Amino acid sequence: MNRRDFLIASAAGAASVAPLSSLAKPRVWKRGEPLKIGVLGVGMRGQVHLKELLRRDDVAITAICDTDPYMIDKALERIAKAGKPKPQVYTGDGDAWRRMYAKSGIDAVFIVTPWELHAVQSIEAMQAKIAVACEVVAGITLDDHWDVLRAQLRTGTPYMLLENVCYRRDVLAALHMARKGLFGEIVHLEGGYQHDLRAVKFNSGEPGKPYGGGYEFGEKGWSEARWRTDHSVRRNGELYPSHGIGPCAMQANIHRGNRFTRLTSYASKARGLHDYIAKNAPEHPNTKVAFKLGDVVQTHLACENGETILLTHDTSLPRPYSLGFRVQGTQGLWMDVNKGIHIEGQSKPHEWDAAEDWFAKHDHPLWQRFADAAKESGHGGMDFFVVNAFVEALRRGEPMPIDIYDAVAWSAITPLSEQSIAEGNRTLDFPDFTDGLWAKRKPIFAFDDRY
Amino acid sequence: MNRRDFLIASAAGAASVAPLSSLAKPRVWKRGEPLKIGVLGVGMRGQVHLKELLRRDDVAITAICDTDPYMIDKALERIAKAGKPKPQVYTGDGDAWRRMYAKSGIDAVFIVTPWELHAVQSIEAMQAKIAVACEVVAGITLDDHWDVLRAQLRTGTPYMLLENVCYRRDVLAALHMARKGLFGEIVHLEGGYQHDLRAVKFNSGEPGKPYGGGYEFGEKGWSEARWRTDHSVRRNGELYPSHGIGPCAMQANIHRGNRFTRLTSYASKARGLHDYIAKNAPEHPNTKVAFKLGDVVQTHLACENGETILLTHDTSLPRPYSLGFRVQGTQGLWMDVNKGIHIEGQSKPHEWDAAEDWFAKHDHPLWQRFADAAKESGHGGMDFFVVNAFVEALRRGEPMPIDIYDAVAWSAITPLSEQSIAEGNRTLDFPDFTDGLWAKRKPIFAFDDRY
Repeated sequence: MNRRDFLIASAAGAASVAPLSSLAKPRVWKRGEPLKIGVLGVGMRGQVHLKELLRRDDVAITAICDTDPYMIDKALERIAKAGKPKPQVYTGDGDAWRRMYAKSGIDAVFIVTPWELHAVQSIEAMQAKIAVACEVVAGITLDDHWDVLRAQLRTGTPYMLLENVCYRRDVLAALHMARKGLFGEIVHLEGGYQHDLRAVKFNSGEPGKPYGGGYEFGEKGWSEARWRTDHSVRRNGELYPSHGIGPCAMQANIHRGNRFTRLTSYASKARGLHDYIAKNAPEHPNTKVAFKLGDVVQTHLACENGETILLTHDTSLPRPYSLGFRVQGTQGLWMDVNKGIHIEGQSKPHEWDAAEDWFAKHDHPLWQRFADAAKESGHGGMDFFVVNAFVEALRRGEPMPIDIYDAVAWSAITPLSEQSIAEGNRTLDFPDFTDGLWAKRKPIFAFDDRY
Repeated sequence: MNRRDFLIASAAGAASVAPLSSLAKPRVWKRGEPLKIGVLGVGMRGQVHLKELLRRDDVAITAICDTDPYMIDKALERIAKAGKPKPQVYTGDGDAWRRMYAKSGIDAVFIVTPWELHAVQSIEAMQAKIAVACEVVAGITLDDHWDVLRAQLRTGTPYMLLENVCYRRDVLAALHMARKGLFGEIVHLEGGYQHDLRAVKFNSGEPGKPYGGGYEFGEKGWSEARWRTDHSVRRNGELYPSHGIGPCAMQANIHRGNRFTRLTSYASKARGLHDYIAKNAPEHPNTKVAFKLGDVVQTHLACENGETILLTHDTSLPRPYSLGFRVQGTQGLWMDVNKGIHIEGQSKPHEWDAAEDWFAKHDHPLWQRFADAAKESGHGGMDFFVVNAFVEALRRGEPMPIDIYDAVAWSAITPLSEQSIAEGNRTLDFPDFTDGLWAKRKPIFAFDDRY
């Protein structure tokens, strides 16, 4: 029996997925036995994961894969500098990752490639019994998400979505407060991705200069501008839902006693990307591109248990960064935008408290334990936690804390929002990816200080 | 010809309403000739308008009407204290206002009664050629709003909705900034009514004690608890749209080159009002009331010119007050919640400026002129401006700055949102109350320092 055959922990937990209950137990790694990891995609984001993985003694980066020789070199430099052994390198063409899956002997793969590759690369990894840590999002189309889900259920290979914002310190503190009942019964949630990405979507195309400095994208761009911007040309919807919906879904216990039932999206006119080029480079041929993505896209979700969720996607206009979280219950609320918390009976009536005072008092056990370890990590420490969660859960043979159902439902917001907008802001029923399991599954995310 | 026959200024302007173009010119009042005003409803809100009107020399309160003897006495005291002549008093039964319309000889009426009376009282006033200053909202049902509109178009009697937030200092400064182009092209707007009204919806029922102190409403309540709370029992929708939509509509030039095209509403579960009673008076019979109004109701509107608008109604939960305005364009945005403004090229990249600094520099001409006059006025001065606008426009025979189309479209958001929610968050086409006139009409609201 191939050792990978042990890797069969269902993301849903063995008990709740009947077809898998007869399979062997998930593999557990012993102390001192490193998890062999391949990093598929060592671009700007992949390098951050590399950095996190290189700090750990319980993993070994045994393979890397990318089509960009510039970033392969950077990755090898980084690995050498960390004093770790040189990994196998898979590169040269668009099928290099398939060779890595077939030949490298890795236990797990970090998929950190352009969005459009996530589904196929996840599916084939799971088929090869290589555990998947997939960067947001899980796929592009609704079919992609069903396919990724079915591959996971069929193979039982562990799959986790690397949604780091679920681990943001204030987000986890708010979850901790909610679980203590401080907000009362949760009734409404908000989140989103409000981040001026104009200097991400356009650059000069020069390797090593990912942010700004030009108005190129696609073939002539580099890093995210090379692939991400095209989504703003062709698609109009909530293109990047997981940073906003992840924390909201955890608050609402989605797929664990609750589910999304309906969705409607509204998109404003699309002006920001065109204006950015027209203002700064009026003669540039990209001023003629008709960007389809509305500047502000908002999506409402209704939940089975009566909560409402609002997501905002706003990446093409000048604005300060904000994920715009709001956690509102019958006893009070947190609003991220003004960094305020109000708790009835404890805050002065009709007044805000500074959120930081509450969060300091209710720091999540994970942050209490790992704040120092996360100090140097990407995105204010969040990246430590999301990598740690995948590695720890996998090594222990435990269910993934952000699992296949979360991954596909959160990611499916994108194609559903596109459809809603394309059909005149039509309200759509949200598919039940769990096939009814949502009602019986119990919350498992971040209940202690392990991961 | 009865002198009231002169009161025929169409809210749309004579030129744009063909059937009225042959009518006589609107009446204009001479200096020193006071406008005779009746105040219909001298409850808590009506008293605020009384106070504003009593400060003016260009109006005379010649009649008041209310069914509550307690408030009639308060009003007469207030009028006497101001050294003004005692008005005619209409009271005793639910038809007293009809007698006031028929016999008092008033030129204009302030309608400050429960929402459900606004439509019929406005329609009959306009039929009697009594100009109408109507508190928000214009009516209850969609039919109400069509009826109020048709009565205005048929009679030509001036009608204004008393939406005071359109005159809030920061709201007007933001409009002033937008008109100077500082935000660029407007793409997205937000507003709402987020105000913990639990102590308004419930009280002891004792006259003179409108806020809190008990858990009664309806027959046993007093002031707003007497009538307003019932709407939370029977209705689920955006029950109080105008404070939020008014400023957004002015930014988007609704009915003046633009219009609402679609609407969708989402309502969270309804917990707040029940919990408020259950927590504080667990034995009270009102714990058995099933409140229908969702705690947080959000409504999306799409506009003909591509802007999106989000409204939030949140009046049943503990929270600090916020109308949550957001004015976002291609060059920057204002967010009310964090009192921040970002303007590209002037603010530091990706950072907020204090909104107050921008607003101080771009104070609206109306506030520059009238800030002192408004200092003592209700709701931070807004009430001065809204009363002033009605009186000034009427006296000059000019179109109402918040006119019949604004009134009915803003107010119709309520029944439309109820329908959307009742039909599974269905997206509805927004009726065009202007019958196509929206395309040709020009903005007139607050372009100078007159009113």
